[in-house]
Amino acid sequence: MHLYKRFCVWLGHLKLSRVIMSVFVILFTVPLVTHYYLSKYETTTTSQGSGNMRHTLEALSDPSPANVADLKLRIEEMLRIKASVSTELRELESRRGRLQREAAAASAKADSVKAEHARATAELMRLRASAEQARLAQLDAMRRDSPDIAPPAQIVPSQPPPTLPSVSPSLEPYCRMHSCFDHSRCSLTSGFPVYLYDPDIYSPLAGAEVDGFLKTTLRQTLGYNTHLTRDPNEACIYLALVGEAFPFDKTPSSTTEIYKLMLNETAVKRLPYWGGDGRNHVLLNLARRELSVGSGDAFRGTSTGRAMIAQSTFTLDQFRPGFDLITPPALGPPGGDVWADCASIAPARRKYILSFQGSQTPATGTVKDDDKSLMDFLQKTAKSAPPSDVFYLQFECDPPVERRAVLAIGDWALCGTDRSRRSILRDSTFVLILAPADRTYATTALLQARLYEALRSGAIPVILGGDRIRLPYDEVLDWRRATMLLPKARVTELHFLLRAMTDADLLAFRRQGRVLWERYLSSVQASVDSLLAVIRTRLNIPPRPAVPIIGAPAFNESYYPLKVEPPAMDSEPEETLGPLEAPYPSPTFKRNYTVALLQGYEMWNEWGEPFTLYPQLPWDPPVTSEARFIGSAAGFRPLGAGAGGAGRELSEALGGDRPREQFTIVILTYEREAVLAAALARLRGLPYLNKVVVVWNGVTGPSMAAWPESGAPVAVVRAARNSLNNRFLPYHLIDTEAVLCVDDDAHLRHDEIVFAFRVWREHRDRIVGFPGRYHAWDLNFNNGFLYNSNYSCELSMVLTGAAFIHRYYMWAYWRALPAAVRDYVDEYMNCEDIAMNFLVAHITRKPPVKVTSRWTFRCPGCPVTLSSDETHFHERHKCIQFFSQVMGYTPLLSTQYRADSVLFKTRIPHDKQKCFKFI
Amino acid sequence: MHLYKRFCVWLGHLKLSRVIMSVFVILFTVPLVTHYYLSKYETTTTSQGSGNMRHTLEALSDPSPANVADLKLRIEEMLRIKASVSTELRELESRRGRLQREAAAASAKADSVKAEHARATAELMRLRASAEQARLAQLDAMRRDSPDIAPPAQIVPSQPPPTLPSVSPSLEPYCRMHSCFDHSRCSLTSGFPVYLYDPDIYSPLAGAEVDGFLKTTLRQTLGYNTHLTRDPNEACIYLALVGEAFPFDKTPSSTTEIYKLMLNETAVKRLPYWGGDGRNHVLLNLARRELSVGSGDAFRGTSTGRAMIAQSTFTLDQFRPGFDLITPPALGPPGGDVWADCASIAPARRKYILSFQGSQTPATGTVKDDDKSLMDFLQKTAKSAPPSDVFYLQFECDPPVERRAVLAIGDWALCGTDRSRRSILRDSTFVLILAPADRTYATTALLQARLYEALRSGAIPVILGGDRIRLPYDEVLDWRRATMLLPKARVTELHFLLRAMTDADLLAFRRQGRVLWERYLSSVQASVDSLLAVIRTRLNIPPRPAVPIIGAPAFNESYYPLKVEPPAMDSEPEETLGPLEAPYPSPTFKRNYTVALLQGYEMWNEWGEPFTLYPQLPWDPPVTSEARFIGSAAGFRPLGAGAGGAGRELSEALGGDRPREQFTIVILTYEREAVLAAALARLRGLPYLNKVVVVWNGVTGPSMAAWPESGAPVAVVRAARNSLNNRFLPYHLIDTEAVLCVDDDAHLRHDEIVFAFRVWREHRDRIVGFPGRYHAWDLNFNNGFLYNSNYSCELSMVLTGAAFIHRYYMWAYWRALPAAVRDYVDEYMNCEDIAMNFLVAHITRKPPVKVTSRWTFRCPGCPVTLSSDETHFHERHKCIQFFSQVMGYTPLLSTQYRADSVLFKTRIPHDKQKCFKFI
Repeated sequence: MHLYKRFCVWLGHLKLSRVIMSVFVILFTVPLVTHYYLSKYETTTTSQGSGNMRHTLEALSDPSPANVADLKLRIEEMLRIKASVSTELRELESRRGRLQREAAAASAKADSVKAEHARATAELMRLRASAEQARLAQLDAMRRDSPDIAPPAQIVPSQPPPTLPSVSPSLEPYCRMHSCFDHSRCSLTSGFPVYLYDPDIYSPLAGAEVDGFLKTTLRQTLGYNTHLTRDPNEACIYLALVGEAFPFDKTPSSTTEIYKLMLNETAVKRLPYWGGDGRNHVLLNLARRELSVGSGDAFRGTSTGRAMIAQSTFTLDQFRPGFDLITPPALGPPGGDVWADCASIAPARRKYILSFQGSQTPATGTVKDDDKSLMDFLQKTAKSAPPSDVFYLQFECDPPVERRAVLAIGDWALCGTDRSRRSILRDSTFVLILAPADRTYATTALLQARLYEALRSGAIPVILGGDRIRLPYDEVLDWRRATMLLPKARVTELHFLLRAMTDADLLAFRRQGRVLWERYLSSVQASVDSLLAVIRTRLNIPPRPAVPIIGAPAFNESYYPLKVEPPAMDSEPEETLGPLEAPYPSPTFKRNYTVALLQGYEMWNEWGEPFTLYPQLPWDPPVTSEARFIGSAAGFRPLGAGAGGAGRELSEALGGDRPREQFTIVILTYEREAVLAAALARLRGLPYLNKVVVVWNGVTGPSMAAWPESGAPVAVVRAARNSLNNRFLPYHLIDTEAVLCVDDDAHLRHDEIVFAFRVWREHRDRIVGFPGRYHAWDLNFNNGFLYNSNYSCELSMVLTGAAFIHRYYMWAYWRALPAAVRDYVDEYMNCEDIAMNFLVAHITRKPPVKVTSRWTFRCPGCPVTLSSDETHFHERHKCIQFFSQVMGYTPLLSTQYRADSVLFKTRIPHDKQKCFKFI
Repeated sequence: MHLYKRFCVWLGHLKLSRVIMSVFVILFTVPLVTHYYLSKYETTTTSQGSGNMRHTLEALSDPSPANVADLKLRIEEMLRIKASVSTELRELESRRGRLQREAAAASAKADSVKAEHARATAELMRLRASAEQARLAQLDAMRRDSPDIAPPAQIVPSQPPPTLPSVSPSLEPYCRMHSCFDHSRCSLTSGFPVYLYDPDIYSPLAGAEVDGFLKTTLRQTLGYNTHLTRDPNEACIYLALVGEAFPFDKTPSSTTEIYKLMLNETAVKRLPYWGGDGRNHVLLNLARRELSVGSGDAFRGTSTGRAMIAQSTFTLDQFRPGFDLITPPALGPPGGDVWADCASIAPARRKYILSFQGSQTPATGTVKDDDKSLMDFLQKTAKSAPPSDVFYLQFECDPPVERRAVLAIGDWALCGTDRSRRSILRDSTFVLILAPADRTYATTALLQARLYEALRSGAIPVILGGDRIRLPYDEVLDWRRATMLLPKARVTELHFLLRAMTDADLLAFRRQGRVLWERYLSSVQASVDSLLAVIRTRLNIPPRPAVPIIGAPAFNESYYPLKVEPPAMDSEPEETLGPLEAPYPSPTFKRNYTVALLQGYEMWNEWGEPFTLYPQLPWDPPVTSEARFIGSAAGFRPLGAGAGGAGRELSEALGGDRPREQFTIVILTYEREAVLAAALARLRGLPYLNKVVVVWNGVTGPSMAAWPESGAPVAVVRAARNSLNNRFLPYHLIDTEAVLCVDDDAHLRHDEIVFAFRVWREHRDRIVGFPGRYHAWDLNFNNGFLYNSNYSCELSMVLTGAAFIHRYYMWAYWRALPAAVRDYVDEYMNCEDIAMNFLVAHITRKPPVKVTSRWTFRCPGCPVTLSSDETHFHERHKCIQFFSQVMGYTPLLSTQYRADSVLFKTRIPHDKQKCFKFI
């Protein structure tokens, strides 16, 4: 047995080339040697005969009669010998045959015994590892003295705010969160309830002349916001729409009329929950149309108590940082997809290097010459620029705009129509935005409108006077990444600065501008959600938790198919891949109060979104290396208990920098019960599997009478309608961060799955899986990318027919992707996997990870798959092009390597074991 | 030829198991078959004989005389036949031998012809690819119409600031950069020159009572700052040390003495470059010792014109955001290593969950009850907490501190000594910091001292009243990641909040606190450098460029060894790995004005440091996918011109998301000329190699007469002294971002190098290389990690004896690592590779990437290497433990996979080529 093992090990180490060479040598020599010996044997067995023969011949050469008689005797003897020899030969032959049969039988028996032994050993190791796991889990349970935290329960007040004496208006400029905000209504676990004063009733009360569209939109929009409460007694924040800056089409005829637009201070103070001083109130003045009346300030000279003010126009001394809020003008739609308004991100450099269109209202009481010299300098720059740098500068509108301004602050009116401006902006690499000449202004509605339009069309805003300008929600948004904020003094260096940028940086600015615009400014919904999220972030109250989808069970309560033992699989190699464990869900909602602190910047400006609390994020930090051995050991399963190790230790523990976890398999299937049953049977004994969730896409529910036992719980949910998007529904049944998406006909081996799971644990924010694809430039039409599934040394997609993703992306698929993408998937019944690749690449700016090559997509009994179809490919080209159009660019990135296990195809010492036997 | 190829392909696809089975079958059958035929042949050739023999025997059985005569004749005939047959056999035998020899010769010839053909084909492909490269490079040159940007040239003013009328003190509170700063002295290309008023001369003039130590330290410290200028005419910023808060050991005896500490307004206005209004002046008041006089405000009630104020104490209305600067108190050493003062980061939870020690000075004119109720509540919380949560709360010092406060603002005095406080802080998970009871204060020197001490000892600061408190340099530093800033109202929820945090988050807070403390607060140097960097960042002026090391050439001008053609290498497989190109340096300094905008947050708070401008960073963003085909094609080499592809296309172009580039090989060698010559010879024909830099570590210079031609330029620099740290000197000779560090005795194959280069291009911020190692927990002593080089399935280091790193890390090695680490490397002549792994893991929080397994570290002629030594290992254990102590934690992270080429060991169609032949 021992020798046999050593032989096997030796065999495993042979190089193919050497084997082949040896074989040829053997093939050449063995026949000759065999022949030699066989001949010899024959010679020997017949030697008596042939010896006699020689005598016979000798005798014949001397033909005397005595000799003849002797000869005859000899000949007879010879014949006897011959007969006996041939008998002997026959016997030998039959004995050889028998021996051969016996040997074959013995060898077969040995093989089966060996196989059984291997199985038993593997089973034993698995059981040992499982016992160890159980022991560790028990230890963990003892160590963990803090209770598991659930999504936060709501603790809210039950009284309206008590009435307190109002503050003196002289204190109002000093209002900050610590001095004017009542934290007692907003406990950390309150869930941040927001009460909206019905705009139809209260906006006119507050003296505001607000457009009906805006009122309706606000009410609707807030209806979608999870923080909205109908109960004013429990509210943390009271939101009142008190104004809309003067509409474009109504020119105020007199100063009286203007003052009608200003806030009716007395009316505001009569709001039912004002509580004497307006604590926790947000007075919202949404600029919706082009305007120039005081550039949209509704609060000048009025007293607003302790209420926060949110509008687009502020003077420097009026704006209270960290308290008031700068909102973008409500120029967009109420909500929904906005991508169609945007321009594509590439090319980096557009027709005009810098453009400007505007007309200035003379500022009263400020030095007007300031802007004059600026304009002169810019004109001069434009003239002296090399022909490759085209400037489009228009400091007077054509046709001239009506000077509607009454309070002249030297702001720049917009020229032309939205459409005409857009066409210039789409051709501009940079667009100039000039701060109003009146230096007391920190922001105006007109300036915000310019910013809005610039970002929408992908023109990078260059704000001169940007050192005093404040941009929307700048306490959380990093505007340096999307705009150039320059002091007016830098106008002399402007051209140099714009020329000094690389294409990559230009694209990064433009992309970031679009991200910020889409998430926080584009629609009324985005803007109001952001407004509330900013206040919530100040209070460090977590957002409302993401709601999982409750899948309709495919079997009703009373009926559930029988579990049957699946047939033993000979295809699965006998290898211990990990312990058998009880289902262990990933811990949830552990970072409710820290994620916005530790990763607040990234949440607002990079991968995240601040509007929802997720049970886990792919970006949760790991504990440091030694903390796993000092004080924070709970849940960790280091290799060799910390000493590290090769294959054996790997098969016993997960290792890595993360605590133990398991994964969920989500199988999307469409009325193929046999295929599904086979898929489930194949999962039997798969380590680290927490649960199998089958998404049944079909008109009729499943009707199987029996169900193969897969070893892990199986849940079957019936989708409401047949859609490939269902693959990414964040079902409540999924209890783990790791989700392995598989097609029902994907044949993945257990070792491949376990290895991919381990790789995913290191790249939790990426797609980690098997089928690699790429996007290739269409060299014929030169206008976009084509889908390509050829063998390639570079890949940019890993299909979700067999890939691990983080559960977070199942929410992101429905929230971060424009609806148009999902609709397209439904329309063509294709490309949900491409959409997921676009999403993850867009969020992370990283390529996917492809693991191992042994994976084969074979399904013996399946009907011809969709993929073999020519139209399938054509559709997938179209998908890439459509998704790129929706996102403004193709976010996919490339990778030229594949992840293999560390000791794959490596020669290692005999006493070591590889990480995996076959991969 | 074609058939032969197909046979080879078929051979390559055979499974070993099948081959072995077939071989056994063949082994069994062939001899038998052969034997059968050979026997038959013999039978046939002797058939005449044996036919005759039968006749003979028949004749013998009828022994008539006629027959006998006949028999004799026949026998004679038979003998004749036999002789002829044996002759024939001999002839045949010799003919067979001849034929075999001929066949062997022919086959050898065919082999050599084939090999030659392969070589020729490879050469042809390489030449074709090279020609293509040349064409593309030419295209790039034509496309790039903007000149290459060099490190910025300095454009500075040449006049002192003109004198302007002073501003009215009533305008001073409104001073901001746009209203009070003179940009004309600070052009983008000025390099930000800073002039320091000599503290010995001017500080007393300004009426300040400044400690001699502080004056000397400041002068010395600024001497190291690259922005310091001695010429006041060209300065952008004028720095004046005007005060030091009242020293601890001098209790002011009277109000008069206190007012002596205040700024002498008239004296300040006599500073020679004041220019009438103090434009561009920074008045620095560094609190160096414990103090309570007005908590360190030197400027209250004085007029400072347009000058910026930098100190640790500000009231809310005094502090001008974006203009004034909050500095940490100067509690640390002048400069140098500070790690010895710090506590280790693990364990996450310490003895006390929360500690506080302090004694409050009664606040005048503010509600004192406020803090009383706070204290009461905290005491109650401490009492009702579960036994696992130990609070250490001390609201009166023991022994009581002298109430030195004269301006009582309700600030909390420090108890005990630095040493006694430190021992409590090192045992505290969180430490409470209470804002002064006087709500008008935004920061005080005492509070800053508490923050400083807390971060130093790794106690996470919880600042109650944190919603009005401002922390040092908070316009660039994200303090949310290192401290908990809570309104006092949240005291009721404090315990809940502290308990709700995971260990991973605790460690992340603590680590970030230490990073910020070390970089920006720890020493006077750090603090002053940060102060200037913040102002520079406001102006978006890039820092001074990093200075490369000018290596001393090992050969003098006149003598350079002969280049000789190295012997042809048969070990290198004939494979086209890439085009031969002319040396192409990586573009430098392309992001001078954008990196601080697009990545300013990360530079200050994550991987970077804002003090130096680097020619490139590992984090430079790539252009988007389609931009490479629309407008930004310059430099890109997409596979198959964009269509993608397998091995052939890969060998012709770099592909990926980055433009073309090359790498530099840095070889560290110690007086082993033969080994070095062999190493250089092996590099011949290596694609993408820009240059070889040999760092000659030795007492005598190299003395070789001849030098093998390596195909790329070879530069030999002689290190000033024998040190392993020299491996990471950022020599000016290195022109590329990618640097392949190799030991002189490392045998890397060309395909391995090229593949690793490709993988590095995707992971520019990580170490990408061959020899994987890991850190294993010391299970015997349970007190740290051990170095381990065993075969393992998890690794955490890739040794720099054969690894790619980004050139940036060669600077970071000298700037971001404490000097103690490099000294340790020098002392033990070991571990520089471990140090680099620690550095990169600390900066990126990512594990290294190991590539392929074929790599073998063999050196036939080398003496026994250091590594075989037992002490070597012992030293390396010690290194890991020492470096962990210096950094406060072990930054290494683990990985369980290896990067292989995409089609490695994959069965692919015949018309496709693998990415690499052998890896």
